[in-house]
This record gives sequence, C-alpha cells and structure tokens, in this order.
Amino acid sequence: MDFQFKLDFKVRDYECDLQGVVNNSVYQNYLEHTRHEFLLSTGIDFAELARQQINLVVVRAELDYKTPLVSGDAFWVGLNLERSSKVRFDFIQSIYRVEDEKLALQAKITGTALNERGRPFVPDVIEHLFNASN
Amino acid sequence: MDFQFKLDFKVRDYECDLQGVVNNSVYQNYLEHTRHEFLLSTGIDFAELARQQINLVVVRAELDYKTPLVSGDAFWVGLNLERSSKVRFDFIQSIYRVEDEKLALQAKITGTALNERGRPFVPDVIEHLFNASN
Amino acid sequence: MDFQFKLDFKVRDYECDLQGVVNNSVYQNYLEHTRHEFLLSTGIDFAELARQQINLVVVRAELDYKTPLVSGDAFWVGLNLERSSKVRFDFIQSIYRVEDEKLALQAKITGTALNERGRPFVPDVIEHLFNASN
Amino acid sequence: MDFQFKLDFKVRDYECDLQGVVNNSVYQNYLEHTRHEFLLSTGIDFAELARQQINLVVVRAELDYKTPLVSGDAFWVGLNLERSSKVRFDFIQSIYRVEDEKLALQAKITGTALNERGRPFVPDVIEHLFNASN
Repeated sequence: MDFQFKLDFKVRDYECDLQGVVNNSVYQNYLEHTRHEFLLSTGIDFAELARQQINLVVVRAELDYKTPLVSGDAFWVGLNLERSSKVRFDFIQSIYRVEDEKLALQAKITGTALNERGRPFVPDVIEHLFNASN
Repeated sequence: MDFQFKLDFKVRDYECDLQGVVNNSVYQNYLEHTRHEFLLSTGIDFAELARQQINLVVVRAELDYKTPLVSGDAFWVGLNLERSSKVRFDFIQSIYRVEDEKLALQAKITGTALNERGRPFVPDVIEHLFNASN
Repeated sequence: MDFQFKLDFKVRDYECDLQGVVNNSVYQNYLEHTRHEFLLSTGIDFAELARQQINLVVVRAELDYKTPLVSGDAFWVGLNLERSSKVRFDFIQSIYRVEDEKLALQAKITGTALNERGRPFVPDVIEHLFNASN
Repeated sequence: MDFQFKLDFKVRDYECDLQGVVNNSVYQNYLEHTRHEFLLSTGIDFAELARQQINLVVVRAELDYKTPLVSGDAFWVGLNLERSSKVRFDFIQSIYRVEDEKLALQAKITGTALNERGRPFVPDVIEHLFNASN
C-alpha cells in the first residue's frame, strides 16, 4: 500500500502496560504524532493553529488492533488523507512492525476544524491539501 | 439509558493537552479503567488473569467524540457488556459530563481473550457474565 | 504526620508498566493532581491562572520511591505547603498505601509562578496561603 | 560536558499540557527511555531482565527544570553512569534543546536492582559496566 506520509518510531518501555505490550491508548499517541508531523511537512503547525483558536479536532476514531507491539519493536506509521464530507476529512493510518512488515494496527481517524465560535469548517490550509492532490 | 455499571471520574489537569481539552487518547484510559473496575465488581481481576497468561485484549475500538472534557469537569462512564460473536464481546461505553449530563463520548470496544498460545477464546469467568444475565 | 490536604486515589491498570508496577513517571501525575486539587480547595484554579498567563511551574522535584504501588492498590496523597524563599514554595508530599499505611513515595516539589514576561513571583492568591496560616 | 550516551528526541504534541509546555512528568519518560536505550547499547535488555525477575528500579529522582520544552522542539538527552554505593548507581542525565543548546533539565536518577526476593543488588551485567570503564 502507498502512503502520502510515513514516520518511524520505536516502542518506549514506559508505553507498555502490565501485559507487557503497548497499551491500547498509546497507539492513538502514535497516530496523532504522525498526523501532526504530516501536517507540519505541508506547512501546517497544529500548535500554532491552536494559538490562533483554530482547533483541529478528532470527531471519530476507528482502530483495529491486529498485532501487539512490544518492548524493542521498531515500527512505522503510514498515512493517507481523504476528504469525507464538506467539513470532514479522514486520516487512513496503518502501523507496521519493521522486523517483518506485519500490520500492527489499522485506523481511520475522522477530523474537522473548529473556528473560534466552535463551528466546524475546513481551513484554507487544509482545503489546499485536497486541491493540491488533484 | 440504563447501564450495568457506572464509574465516577474527574478530569486531571495532566490529561489535558495544548488545546486545553482532554487529549483524545486519554478517553481510552477512562474506558479501560471502567472496564477493569466493572470486571473486578464481578470478581474478575484483569491483572491476575494476565499473570495466569490469560490476556483480555481489545481487537477493535470505535470512539465518537461528542463534547470535549476540560479541566475541572466531573464525569461518569457507563458500561454495558454484549456478546458479539462466539469469541468476541462488546463493551458499549458512554461518557457523560456531570454538570449538564451532556454526552462527551460514545464508544464500542470489542474484546476477546487470548490463551497462553495466543488463541482467542472466552474464559469461563466471562462466559458466566452472559449466562448470568439470562 | 499531619497534612493540610489529602486526596484519595486508586491505581489504574494503564498506569502500570511491564514490571507490573506503577511507572515512576506516573507518581508525578498523582502529585500534580493533588497539588491542583489542594489549590482548588483554597480557591485557586490552575487552569484559570494559565489562561490569565500566570503559570505556576515546578522548578525542582525530589522523589524517593519507597514501595511500588501495583494494580488494585488504593492510596492517598498528603500535602503540606511551605515557603522556601522569596519567590519559591515547597510542596511536601507523601503517598501512602491504604491497605497497610505503608509509605510508597516521599517527595518535595519546589514551585514558583511566572508572570506574562516569564519572571518568577509569588501571586497574591498564593501569598495569601502563607499569611493565612500565621 | 561529555556524555557516555546521547539520544535524540522531538517533542510530541500529546506530551504538552494546558500550559502549552511539556508536562513535568513526561521528562521522566524521556529520561527512562534514554536509560533503557543506553543499557541496550551495552547489551542489557530491561524488559528481558524483568522477565527473568531481575527488576531495575529507581529509588530516588532529582529533577531540576531549567527551560520548558514546547511543541516542535528537538532535543537530546545525555547520560553518564556513576557508582554511588555498593548496591546503588546514579544516572546523571541532562536534556538540551537542539536549537540553541540550552539546558532544559538536569537530573540525577539513583537506581538499584532487585532480585526475585526483592533484595537490592547490582547484577553482573551492570557491575561489568563499572569495571569496563576502569
């Protein structure tokens, strides 16, 4: 599968829980960091947008846990961005273990942006990402 | 809506991110803690099961983010357990803000158990939860 | 030992790491939440102060790990506030396991406040805490 | 200052709290990950030791917070290991922001190892680290 963006990671031991595997919630951290680095690679700074009171938010997350990551695992997160409606966009994200390219997690994260008054919209900087790929 | 189990929480400031709201991943912590406390209330100890090499695992998570929780918010998590297949069960979980009973998050967390050899099954202690409710 | 403020907690399984004990960093979460709840009990809202660009910050933390907390442990955090210099104050904090009142952690957290220009000072609301106890 | 080991990091947005800076507890995550990667570089696998019931533990942490890290900051952690007593060793750790080599945090983390019965000792693999440097 082809991805618009990829980011390399390594499991950190504090991310593992008493079952000895990466805790389920931590995958959302990996996915978020990858989204923010992707946005940054296109010139969009999540933290700067927040300071301007434009908040990119997640409205829905679907995560399929396929293979647990454990201490020592190197892995990468792949990302594709798709338009899903007038004010929503989907990040299709997959996590692969480096050692054997096994799929660890498959996710669809649906986002929107909220303006200062909390109304959903797609900011020009993000709109541009869709136009650019046409 | 009726729930089999409810648990009270309060947002802790370290759970909030630079947008000033509870970070998306933290809701999975709230949901997990509620599931484990529910199981404990029925006599099932997640950590003890892990020591016996019976690992309860999440295979899929669906989360709909409705209203962001912020610093100071009291909230509660409601839970219902449903059988979804021979070896899977769903935790239907909702998070409500106490102040105005507004829905903060709606989730469906699908789980199974893995035996020592990593094969999915439903342990007797959990099987019993479904029989008991008949 | 007498404390000005106490807060009850229970270990959540996601706070435990692959050694099966609460991860070292998580104790700082417990201590921070206790400090913020203490401040709130005196009318000081940490998040509200941050919005006013008065940032309460930690300049030094000393933590002595005595007994590891594990899954299922109930515990409480005790707190005393002391003035340590013109612009600094110390939170003396202890964590006790409920079951046997065993000391789990002893800490001294030194804080100050930074104004909008990043200069350390003690805001009136905190100054008042010391005067009040005279 | 010279370090035996260095590790590069970048702040991830989920590590920042409502003050817009990396939360105080997160620095302990950075320090721990650096210690474990250092140990791994010498052939010592923290997770594997835990499975053998040899638990490396922190008995004391001293952290001086110098400059807050924020979203987007690249930084590195330097580490030196010193023997502090018959059964204890100190990790002297510093965090530097890449942009201007400014010191962000200075720490001394004192550790020991616990055998199966919970008795402190220094395992041969770690003892070897001190002998090797003579």
